[in-house]
Amino acid sequence: MDLTSATLDTDLTLDPKDWTDLRALGHRMLDDMMDYLENIREEPVWRPIPGAVKAFFDKEIPQHPENIEEIYDEFKRYILPYNKGNVHPRFFAFVQGTGTPFGVLAEMLAAALNPNVGIGEHASMYVDKQVVEWCKQMMNFPAEASGILLSGGSMANITALAVARNHQLGLDVRKSGLKAVDGQMTLYYSAETHSCMRKAAEVLGLGLEGVRQIPVDADYRINLEALEAAIQEDLAAGHLPFCIVGNAGTVNTGAIDPLDELRDIADRYKLWLHVDGAFGALAKLTPAYREPLKAIERADSVAFDLHKWMYMPYEVGVALVKYPQAHRDAFAVTPAYLSQEKRGLAGGPDPMNNFGMELSRGFKALKVWMSLKEHGLEKYARMIGQNIDQACYLGQLVDADPELELLAPVTMNIVCYRYVKPGLSEVELNELNREILIRLQEEGIASPSSTVLQGRFAIRVANVNQRSVKADFEVLARETVRIGREVGA
Amino acid sequence: MDLTSATLDTDLTLDPKDWTDLRALGHRMLDDMMDYLENIREEPVWRPIPGAVKAFFDKEIPQHPENIEEIYDEFKRYILPYNKGNVHPRFFAFVQGTGTPFGVLAEMLAAALNPNVGIGEHASMYVDKQVVEWCKQMMNFPAEASGILLSGGSMANITALAVARNHQLGLDVRKSGLKAVDGQMTLYYSAETHSCMRKAAEVLGLGLEGVRQIPVDADYRINLEALEAAIQEDLAAGHLPFCIVGNAGTVNTGAIDPLDELRDIADRYKLWLHVDGAFGALAKLTPAYREPLKAIERADSVAFDLHKWMYMPYEVGVALVKYPQAHRDAFAVTPAYLSQEKRGLAGGPDPMNNFGMELSRGFKALKVWMSLKEHGLEKYARMIGQNIDQACYLGQLVDADPELELLAPVTMNIVCYRYVKPGLSEVELNELNREILIRLQEEGIASPSSTVLQGRFAIRVANVNQRSVKADFEVLARETVRIGREVGA
Repeated sequence: MDLTSATLDTDLTLDPKDWTDLRALGHRMLDDMMDYLENIREEPVWRPIPGAVKAFFDKEIPQHPENIEEIYDEFKRYILPYNKGNVHPRFFAFVQGTGTPFGVLAEMLAAALNPNVGIGEHASMYVDKQVVEWCKQMMNFPAEASGILLSGGSMANITALAVARNHQLGLDVRKSGLKAVDGQMTLYYSAETHSCMRKAAEVLGLGLEGVRQIPVDADYRINLEALEAAIQEDLAAGHLPFCIVGNAGTVNTGAIDPLDELRDIADRYKLWLHVDGAFGALAKLTPAYREPLKAIERADSVAFDLHKWMYMPYEVGVALVKYPQAHRDAFAVTPAYLSQEKRGLAGGPDPMNNFGMELSRGFKALKVWMSLKEHGLEKYARMIGQNIDQACYLGQLVDADPELELLAPVTMNIVCYRYVKPGLSEVELNELNREILIRLQEEGIASPSSTVLQGRFAIRVANVNQRSVKADFEVLARETVRIGREVGA
Repeated sequence: MDLTSATLDTDLTLDPKDWTDLRALGHRMLDDMMDYLENIREEPVWRPIPGAVKAFFDKEIPQHPENIEEIYDEFKRYILPYNKGNVHPRFFAFVQGTGTPFGVLAEMLAAALNPNVGIGEHASMYVDKQVVEWCKQMMNFPAEASGILLSGGSMANITALAVARNHQLGLDVRKSGLKAVDGQMTLYYSAETHSCMRKAAEVLGLGLEGVRQIPVDADYRINLEALEAAIQEDLAAGHLPFCIVGNAGTVNTGAIDPLDELRDIADRYKLWLHVDGAFGALAKLTPAYREPLKAIERADSVAFDLHKWMYMPYEVGVALVKYPQAHRDAFAVTPAYLSQEKRGLAGGPDPMNNFGMELSRGFKALKVWMSLKEHGLEKYARMIGQNIDQACYLGQLVDADPELELLAPVTMNIVCYRYVKPGLSEVELNELNREILIRLQEEGIASPSSTVLQGRFAIRVANVNQRSVKADFEVLARETVRIGREVGA
């Protein structure tokens, strides 16, 4: 308006006095990051962190300004070389996506605009809603379903379970709390289900005693007879079965629970069916998994991550719920300072915080919106298909090598295998494979992670990597054998 | 390793075929965003969104690739002009920080490295831990306290309350659930407390019936006598008081509850004291509020946001807990696929997911680490002090103007005021001020938000803006009067 520059100069700000330097540094950072990603294949996938580097992160809080160039130099010296590695083509640990360079740029734009995407009339609310719609379309969920973008699978699963808990009770649990529930609410899922589901049950006040971990079959899928027996037993005991969780890709082996059968059982006992599809749900986009995963469409809610098998930068996951009113009823609250107007900033769509725990929400949707436009869904489907093919290829390499052994069927994108050497006990094999895994990482070759299957230590590959090529899996198999021989000798 | 470019070419990737174009676009985006922020004062703080723009975000999911230049053009056309506005010097709505340009660059770096900061041996884990240590130092919490970075105040508050719930029960509530609790757990906070606390009680299964909303005094601080009476009444009724929440800055008026007295009451009845300091806790850094907020140090846990009064880009908040074992006991679970090793990628510090609900966690810490080094804590303290001074200045302008009226004492950085015109009823004044507020936004002048205090509609300014100057508040006061006269005429 009528503010003179003299006025501005007397006031403190965190903006730079001279934007030129900051801009120049920004351009250098951008070039460095693009160099880093373009040439990531030349880097070791992981390297140990020297003690001096760790000690660098053990300082008192800075009281006085430091030079921004020097801060960036420290970043390059102490942080960049010791990155986790999930940007690397031979990172296969846990289930962690690669991100993309265009996603990096989208995150920069989101940080510049910096909206809180919780409430109000502004573009990011519409982008967020558009992305939720697209997520529904990916899963073929009905148009009236609701959804919310969250930090990832854990938050998406707990959000959906909160809705299930409240909706199934037939009483106002938000008002009365769980004390008023006449009986023990019980939740059913397979023993192979992700630990975030247990955490959800604990946070929501159900307790582990309300959780029934159902055994799995030889393919790590939930045993339906055991499930139904457990439900009947609980009913006979006066408990309150309320929800079944099915897996669209278990974390250990990628197993897909028989979702159609779970739906039928859920219907029979009037239970909520939630599907944890953290990574696996997106395999539904590929021709091979369209049918096996079609039953996700019959679930009452589904959770999946976009930073896993959609290769978006962290963080972004989504929870979809078939019943928007039940979803809203679990979370909505409107204090005076958040009341909506018909016009102005406080207008706009139904606030997002009515559908989840968070009121502060960053502009996670932008990277999804931009990336889906960059590639189109059809390319994502092919990319996911390629990851599955690569996992099958690794499975074949393992199968063909007498020194390697598959520890579970290769389902989707997960391969659990080990190095074997005749004459070693199971305990010795476990120790040997643990050492092989660590050396694969320490030598910078590849980063699988591990799990334990029926007592056997497994080198575990979860492939949600958009940078991997077939030859990367050849390297992994070959180097596993080489290190196995060296360590075993 | 031994991968030929021929091999690479046959495989699909989401990386660009030609990085040159992407880089060029990235540099253009960076320049545009720096231009945007450098010149944000010239922009209207908000503008209405035309129907055509909203319709643009109502499309089917893209199946095929679009040109990245065109995607960016759409961003500039449909998103950028309709930004929320909290980057603008005259945005005072809700409690939403401005961000900084260096923070934007830090977010770009974080997205490029893209680590999941949940588990493992990699630099981002150490940066994250360093930032938590710094947060403890800001609050003068003891060295042994634990903490976790989260998306914001809601998640930080619910995380702390989950710890309080489990710790105070004296039984393993994770195992047994709330059913096993012999009595109604009760939680105490003032009627001015943020709605996320109610949401926390509901999500955690306590229910609204377990919440005691204690009346406030004329200064919007919790009434201590009413609090103690409520606790005694609950004890007499056989309920289980477990926690008091104190406010270090209420959302409506910035009121600070008498925290020392709350601590004493909590001690008397062996209750947990949690402080919601979403924005206000950071005023503790300023000389004027060091003493009034010193009692935060006596709390068992505290939650505050760094994207509010530390001006970081969204999202980042923190929960600090005095008892690391209690904190860990509320959340820790270690399935086989997350087991820790002594060496390699799966080594490293205690995983973050042992201290909260999330397993997927982005590199929120980097922007905090870089920004704190950029400015030093001392400058943040002065910046916060300036925001408080500015709020007082606005309070003086309101006080001095016979057409304006303060609706609450100016505490810290919050000013609730209205335009007054003799002869109008309270209902008419409410309608008039609602219209003034919306026109302030629609004309692009300023974006306060609103609340209702004792039935009166208040134009509410919450100043956590690092770009505002004194004159911005002169503009706000003057334009409120101008619009008030116009609309009132």
